[in-house]
Amino acid sequence: MILDRFKVPEKDQVLVQEAALRRTVAQIFEKLGVTPEDAADGADVLTMADLRGVETHGVSNMLRQYVRDYKAGKLSPKPGWSIVRQSPGTAVIDAERRLGVIVGPKAMRLAVEKAKQVGVGVVTVFNSGHFGAIGHYAMQAAEQDMVGVCFTGAGLSVVPTFASKPLLGTNPIALAAPARHEAPMLFDAATSAIAGNKIRLAIRLGSPLLPSWVTDKDGTPIMEEKPVFDRDDFFQAPLGGTREQGSHKGYGFALMAEVLSTVLSGAVPTMLVQGSGSKNHFAAYDIEAFTDLEHFKDTMDQMLKTLRTAPPAPGHDRVLYPGLSEAEELAKRRAKGVPLHKEVIEWFGQCTRELGVAPLV
Amino acid sequence: MILDRFKVPEKDQVLVQEAALRRTVAQIFEKLGVTPEDAADGADVLTMADLRGVETHGVSNMLRQYVRDYKAGKLSPKPGWSIVRQSPGTAVIDAERRLGVIVGPKAMRLAVEKAKQVGVGVVTVFNSGHFGAIGHYAMQAAEQDMVGVCFTGAGLSVVPTFASKPLLGTNPIALAAPARHEAPMLFDAATSAIAGNKIRLAIRLGSPLLPSWVTDKDGTPIMEEKPVFDRDDFFQAPLGGTREQGSHKGYGFALMAEVLSTVLSGAVPTMLVQGSGSKNHFAAYDIEAFTDLEHFKDTMDQMLKTLRTAPPAPGHDRVLYPGLSEAEELAKRRAKGVPLHKEVIEWFGQCTRELGVAPLV
Repeated sequence: MILDRFKVPEKDQVLVQEAALRRTVAQIFEKLGVTPEDAADGADVLTMADLRGVETHGVSNMLRQYVRDYKAGKLSPKPGWSIVRQSPGTAVIDAERRLGVIVGPKAMRLAVEKAKQVGVGVVTVFNSGHFGAIGHYAMQAAEQDMVGVCFTGAGLSVVPTFASKPLLGTNPIALAAPARHEAPMLFDAATSAIAGNKIRLAIRLGSPLLPSWVTDKDGTPIMEEKPVFDRDDFFQAPLGGTREQGSHKGYGFALMAEVLSTVLSGAVPTMLVQGSGSKNHFAAYDIEAFTDLEHFKDTMDQMLKTLRTAPPAPGHDRVLYPGLSEAEELAKRRAKGVPLHKEVIEWFGQCTRELGVAPLV
Repeated sequence: MILDRFKVPEKDQVLVQEAALRRTVAQIFEKLGVTPEDAADGADVLTMADLRGVETHGVSNMLRQYVRDYKAGKLSPKPGWSIVRQSPGTAVIDAERRLGVIVGPKAMRLAVEKAKQVGVGVVTVFNSGHFGAIGHYAMQAAEQDMVGVCFTGAGLSVVPTFASKPLLGTNPIALAAPARHEAPMLFDAATSAIAGNKIRLAIRLGSPLLPSWVTDKDGTPIMEEKPVFDRDDFFQAPLGGTREQGSHKGYGFALMAEVLSTVLSGAVPTMLVQGSGSKNHFAAYDIEAFTDLEHFKDTMDQMLKTLRTAPPAPGHDRVLYPGLSEAEELAKRRAKGVPLHKEVIEWFGQCTRELGVAPLV
């Protein structure tokens, strides 16, 4: 559910078909040394983000950074990974500088395997590159009739309540659960007032930021709406914005993600070692270990339908649940194509030429 | 970390010692038919909430309701419980109308046992009474060198973003993790803008509610600060308050708690069946299954100390982390006593007289 101010203006849109996007992204990964299997996984994560309308985490914002990091040797394209420790229900993975969107699908597959054995599986990953939209991994579990949960600890952009400098990342939390006729529940939210990538998007689109989304360089929440030109002019606020509006809860959720991903994988938070990469927590709960799958899906359907059909407050058209607009966008974009900004298309043109890949459009 | 406006005014305080409070609360439970062992567990949960300064969930707000519900036969005092389904890492418990503060400690003990076997343990509980401050159960796991996590689905007071009526409870989420010299991390937050019990407390103390904490009876967030006299005059807003400030995230966290506690225990959310009781999710992660315990504690210490000693923003004295003020209150109140409102002391006098229990003070 993205605010209108963050959508690509229609005049700047170029529609790209799913198959073309997947193919080109996978070919770019392969040219950078990634195996075809891993490249397909990575292309799936990015393409699905764009198909679900989560363009902040799709090809537009992220792919060019990944390409830069592979070229600079910051990311390793080699296959496999290193299991540092494991038990029947858990595993800890050293990603050895592999890209998160390539390690993530494998990590959730391992969590699902463990959940099949003992009811619940938890896999933590450290020392990796960016994970994209982590809701995607939660959805992997939902597609296997499990509840999927993810936490990420990464970055240094969010100012804890009452502090004067950023000590935490936007540390997102995601959950997905299957339903029957309703779209699956898919919740994926940064624990900051807004996602970090939304600021980049706002700068590109010339949209102003709203009150208490960000703080001054001394940590004081900015309470007026103003346009942004330079990301370095401010820090991000936790969800809630101010203490009175609950920023200590957003801060707490960020720290919760940090403990479950970073500290529980034996890694150190970015506040202690900068550039220590992204850390993630992948959990799968086997629904059948808890209750009858069909009963679970029926209850999800009734709950989600009750939310979807609830009478809206004055001035609003309808009530959404997490995952509903994503499912609607998915259907629409699979039929019509993904609207990319013409500037992104230009980047693709340049990138594919440089790497010797067939053009996207 | 409670706002000043919610503290008991000094002139109305009566200081009560920990041992006296534990003893009287346990004796009240026993008089209501609860076994001594269960009564001690329940008294521990309530007394620890008051000792940690979480008076919204201590004896003041909750105990009288529990006593009423036992007397009315809404709560069952009988020992034991019913395990509906289990696997090596998971269990589902039908609490059969037992009180949450009595079932909760046993549920987390079972989760810890399972985590010792397979690395992670998850226990869901349905059909129970109120669980009090769920951070307490997370702390049980932390005291066993595990990370403890809890989710609750209960009640019908929070309006989903864009909706016109409440469909979710305040559905809190909690995490506790051990450190070495620093106080353990203890995060426990309602996913609503403020906890439900804070409204009761605000009414008793005559404090106004702040903008976007609550909505009109048509679901529109109230944006001015105003005093409250009647809980029925408004509904609660999700964390974030308005869509622009991220209420869809607070709403999503509430639904996350609902799925992990209610739907994953095979129960139905309160929005579908009113009076269906409280549902909870208890998770324990065995730190040694993931990484070296000593390394984990060192990292927690470094992280929490970095937060605690971070330079504060202008106008603020210091930066807190979740659990710090609770640990400070615990030390202070263990030494000096718990400050209860004189009106609460009066209730204790009446309750102990009626039940034939020795007076609290």
